[in-house]
Amino acid sequence: MPEEQVDGRRRVVIEGVRPEIDCGQFAIKRVVGESVVVEADVFADGHDQVACRVVYWRENSKEVESSPMKFLGNDRWRGEFCVASPEKYRYTVEGWIDRFQSWRSELIKRIAAGQDVEVELLIGAKIIEDAAKQASGEDAKFLRRSINRLREEKDVESKTSVALEPELLDVVARYPDRELVSRYEKHLAVVVDREKARFSTWYEMFPRSCSPDPARHGTFRDCEARLPYVASMGFDVIYLPPIHPIGHTFRKGKNNSISAQPDDVGSPWAIGSEEGGHKSIHPQLGTLEDFRHFVSAAKGHGLEVAIDIAFQCTMDHPYAKQHREWFRTRPDGTIQYAENPPKKYQDILPLDFESPEWHALWDELRGVVLFWLEQGIRIFRVDNPHTKPFSFWEWLIGQVKEQYPDVLFLAEAFTRPHVMYRLAKVGFSQSYTYFAWRNTKDELTDYFNEITNTELREYFRPNLWPNTPDILPEFLQVGGRPAFMIRFILAATLGASYGIYGPAFELCENTPYESGSEEYLNSEKYELKHRDLDAAGSLKDFIARINRIRKENPALQSDRNLRFHGTDNPSLICYSKTTDDLSNIILVVVNLDPSHTQAGWIDLDLNSLGLDADHAFQGHDLLGEGRYLWHGARNYVELTPESLPAHILQMRRWTRTEHDFDYYL
Amino acid sequence: MPEEQVDGRRRVVIEGVRPEIDCGQFAIKRVVGESVVVEADVFADGHDQVACRVVYWRENSKEVESSPMKFLGNDRWRGEFCVASPEKYRYTVEGWIDRFQSWRSELIKRIAAGQDVEVELLIGAKIIEDAAKQASGEDAKFLRRSINRLREEKDVESKTSVALEPELLDVVARYPDRELVSRYEKHLAVVVDREKARFSTWYEMFPRSCSPDPARHGTFRDCEARLPYVASMGFDVIYLPPIHPIGHTFRKGKNNSISAQPDDVGSPWAIGSEEGGHKSIHPQLGTLEDFRHFVSAAKGHGLEVAIDIAFQCTMDHPYAKQHREWFRTRPDGTIQYAENPPKKYQDILPLDFESPEWHALWDELRGVVLFWLEQGIRIFRVDNPHTKPFSFWEWLIGQVKEQYPDVLFLAEAFTRPHVMYRLAKVGFSQSYTYFAWRNTKDELTDYFNEITNTELREYFRPNLWPNTPDILPEFLQVGGRPAFMIRFILAATLGASYGIYGPAFELCENTPYESGSEEYLNSEKYELKHRDLDAAGSLKDFIARINRIRKENPALQSDRNLRFHGTDNPSLICYSKTTDDLSNIILVVVNLDPSHTQAGWIDLDLNSLGLDADHAFQGHDLLGEGRYLWHGARNYVELTPESLPAHILQMRRWTRTEHDFDYYL
Repeated sequence: MPEEQVDGRRRVVIEGVRPEIDCGQFAIKRVVGESVVVEADVFADGHDQVACRVVYWRENSKEVESSPMKFLGNDRWRGEFCVASPEKYRYTVEGWIDRFQSWRSELIKRIAAGQDVEVELLIGAKIIEDAAKQASGEDAKFLRRSINRLREEKDVESKTSVALEPELLDVVARYPDRELVSRYEKHLAVVVDREKARFSTWYEMFPRSCSPDPARHGTFRDCEARLPYVASMGFDVIYLPPIHPIGHTFRKGKNNSISAQPDDVGSPWAIGSEEGGHKSIHPQLGTLEDFRHFVSAAKGHGLEVAIDIAFQCTMDHPYAKQHREWFRTRPDGTIQYAENPPKKYQDILPLDFESPEWHALWDELRGVVLFWLEQGIRIFRVDNPHTKPFSFWEWLIGQVKEQYPDVLFLAEAFTRPHVMYRLAKVGFSQSYTYFAWRNTKDELTDYFNEITNTELREYFRPNLWPNTPDILPEFLQVGGRPAFMIRFILAATLGASYGIYGPAFELCENTPYESGSEEYLNSEKYELKHRDLDAAGSLKDFIARINRIRKENPALQSDRNLRFHGTDNPSLICYSKTTDDLSNIILVVVNLDPSHTQAGWIDLDLNSLGLDADHAFQGHDLLGEGRYLWHGARNYVELTPESLPAHILQMRRWTRTEHDFDYYL
Repeated sequence: MPEEQVDGRRRVVIEGVRPEIDCGQFAIKRVVGESVVVEADVFADGHDQVACRVVYWRENSKEVESSPMKFLGNDRWRGEFCVASPEKYRYTVEGWIDRFQSWRSELIKRIAAGQDVEVELLIGAKIIEDAAKQASGEDAKFLRRSINRLREEKDVESKTSVALEPELLDVVARYPDRELVSRYEKHLAVVVDREKARFSTWYEMFPRSCSPDPARHGTFRDCEARLPYVASMGFDVIYLPPIHPIGHTFRKGKNNSISAQPDDVGSPWAIGSEEGGHKSIHPQLGTLEDFRHFVSAAKGHGLEVAIDIAFQCTMDHPYAKQHREWFRTRPDGTIQYAENPPKKYQDILPLDFESPEWHALWDELRGVVLFWLEQGIRIFRVDNPHTKPFSFWEWLIGQVKEQYPDVLFLAEAFTRPHVMYRLAKVGFSQSYTYFAWRNTKDELTDYFNEITNTELREYFRPNLWPNTPDILPEFLQVGGRPAFMIRFILAATLGASYGIYGPAFELCENTPYESGSEEYLNSEKYELKHRDLDAAGSLKDFIARINRIRKENPALQSDRNLRFHGTDNPSLICYSKTTDDLSNIILVVVNLDPSHTQAGWIDLDLNSLGLDADHAFQGHDLLGEGRYLWHGARNYVELTPESLPAHILQMRRWTRTEHDFDYYL
């Protein structure tokens, strides 16, 4: 005897549900207003027709909604729903034998074959009756009326025409026999974020370098004066390295030297001193009040402040005294500092997540995040998340998002692919990538296909950085200003989210600490900087222009429709981004060679662009202002790095409106 | 505070475990003696080294065994275990931080950098101590001794040489800290069958046609006389269409005519009469005693009897009278017969699996299978399983295999791919395929790559039939005897399991009922047949030869290492099968054109065959007896369909043994 709880009469099976990450263990990600397209294989034994729908609900709500699925062929079905608010949704698939549709299509065949259908009509009436029992309101009235007409019409012809009314099919379809509906057993999750999770433009800046006086440590007040400059370039997130008290013991000097001079400011990532830890403000920057004032002023300039979460301590951090149990103690009684043998990092104590007191540690670290949330911060850039347990992040982000669904976390991890992807799965909203080290056409194409055209797109949101305080790539070191333009265009158009570490970037600073190193010479990590923001050659206007293009073109605000097109020159890369409805089509062609003019033929996948091979179309270069009339897939391009190493073309289709001056829409 | 049951200190994550079918919902399949190769992504945060192992156990046993996994690169690990008995096994993966290995490799770096390692040695001693606490016997003694030596040796050099002893690494590795071991949460299943599930050679035969007297209905006694003939061709399964009483009401006449003549024998699939149903023997075939005698006689010839399970009834079946609740009743009170509108099959009543009495129905049908198991039958060919619910088969096969782990079920389903694959997932041991309709090189290559080189190989075991009583493919109708040879060679070498419907096949019967039909003219489904088994042109010796080659070459007894090789002629197909250790390499080249001699060049993937491009190798044609000395990947082949349309080459590698007469092994 089969188990009682399983109803053996449920004949429909549902499998191959997509998207589904690791058997539903992890959520997919969307932003408010996006849709979730769900596909599944839905079928039954025998020849009956099946029907199915996507069922979805807000996790914190009891109200379940549904959306019908359409047949794609080969037992595959597709449906979709829209996510309207920043919270967690759940979805699954239901399928059932569509008795009425099965009966109806057989009835049509029987009539065509001239068979007697009297009994069939009685069977149909019974199916409609079963639907009517579940229906209410207008539907119930309509079904009752249909049943009566089926019974009372004089002749079989009239009865069959009632039975075959399209409206009847629609109404009955709304009331499947609930008892025999199969439901996919997993309740798959979608974490819905606000729009900035998908489309964001980051500017990283050391507050202490914002002082107008080269001799003085910058403050949050100085930072406020810098805001119009940052805003004028079109950024919307301003990210600050750690703003907490910096340790003294084993403080690093300029250029990461082991012995600091008395006036050396130390690394902001060496967190904690007698002046406080992760919930404190470095006194030289100002007070908590100053910080809040800065956050509010930034908001006035359309800039949201992101702070750095770096869960590590110096010897001087209050934790090191009050919570020795959160650190590893060596057999000689000393506290274990960070090492990557043979290298030693005496200024950093890693927290010991294998501590027996891990519960209290987790709680405390959550407390740190909650503290800054209470100060109004909603974006956290997390330093080295890959050196803390995945389960910790999953718990922390899950907990925090329940209370603050608009919070975003950016994972700074440059490590093995599985580790980076797992961090995205456990909840990070955005992720650093290998972009900084992908320079050639093949490298860029392979990497961006991997992250935007595979299952990764469902949960891994790239945030592209052409430079960071830790990374001055070789390409920038040797390629000069054109190299900065090339890498900036790639970041800003390949990625809906990107960021730069400024003003080092826009001022094209590119001297490495030594040959073969990616560290900056006289790195801002260890000293104050004073710069001339109006220096000749600054890319600030160029950056502003491209950020304006990003704002004006929704195609550039998502990574889902990125597609590469062929070129016959390995120094030319060509790709497009489009909105789902193809109302906005952006085609980017970049000369990857910072030293030479490069020319060649591009080979467009016209179909993906919704362009017609038989009609001319116009490419309007939003960067260089040129307009190109193209025809067919193959078109010639020539780009000179010193002037403009790229086209960012808005493609306009030919229209037949001859009364209008603009023939291209 | 995180949930108490999760230990946040378990830092290792395990994902991407393969094989895993539908998130572990279904079992993979193996036969006794095969191995299960398990792969997984296993990694942790930070820089510690991880270790992992496959853990496995017989489902009905408490004894858990394990097998270490090896690092493949990119966080991927692989391990394997052997399944020794026909029952269900479970497996999963465990991973942990390898503290000793992490410590040891850092120690080596510290020593190389000339650092003081006194404290490090104390840390190492502590790790060894933790392992020693779990160890017993020799391991415990060894670990204690190592700790003492680590402490008591005079100088650091001696201590480090103790610490770095390879044996110490091995022994400590056996005792990871159990508390911090991560375990993959799914207990994945392997259903282990006896060998015949993988390698079987089927002969289908209508018992009623076995009478030596054309005027008389054949009996099981007659069948016994036929056994030496079938055995001489090298088959090991003899499959009989249903052997139950045949209904009278709406019995079909010759060539499926609607009105039967009084002497018409009816279709064996029209099961049930006043003489009994699915547990009864058709009286004209003999008694249950006769059947058991036949089964035993077949066993004496190395033939295992498979019977047909066709869960459907005629109007005369006892169920139709005693269990009206298992059938659908129409509004006019009549019982619903089978239809595929506008076609009607009045001789067949489908069982209603949506009946409220489905529990009793399932029980009864399981009873039918158990009845025949009690008669000694262990192989069932299931008719039209795709017209009964998947959940029914999953329950039935699961239940039956618990009691009879050596039972095998062959699914006769020719329907949509998802449906066929789902039947394999829910438990069918072997499956019919689309082989009968795959004739060209491209069709065969694509289809066999799909079923043998994807995840399907884990649970879908193809059984290839070039003909069945329902299917006389067009290729056989038009291609004459060479076509039969071609299709037979393909079936017997592409498939470790295949079957023919004889003697129609070996006698090359190929007249269709009408043009465009795949039905046989004067089909044996509706009448008795009498044939001359010694007719000129019979393929019986050819079949015997190929079956002998299959028995002698283990490469042909599995589908896991099937690989296609290039040819420059679309009428030539070339593929190889090998044992895992490459000790047996079979290369098959078939001329797919039954009408013309075809010649061309084949392009071997030498690497997959373990052959050396720099040395000659020999192909010994086991079919035509020729020997070919080849060199390199490209080799010439010419095949004439009338004589032998294929080579079945055993490849022998060059050896350097000059004292031996046979230079090729």
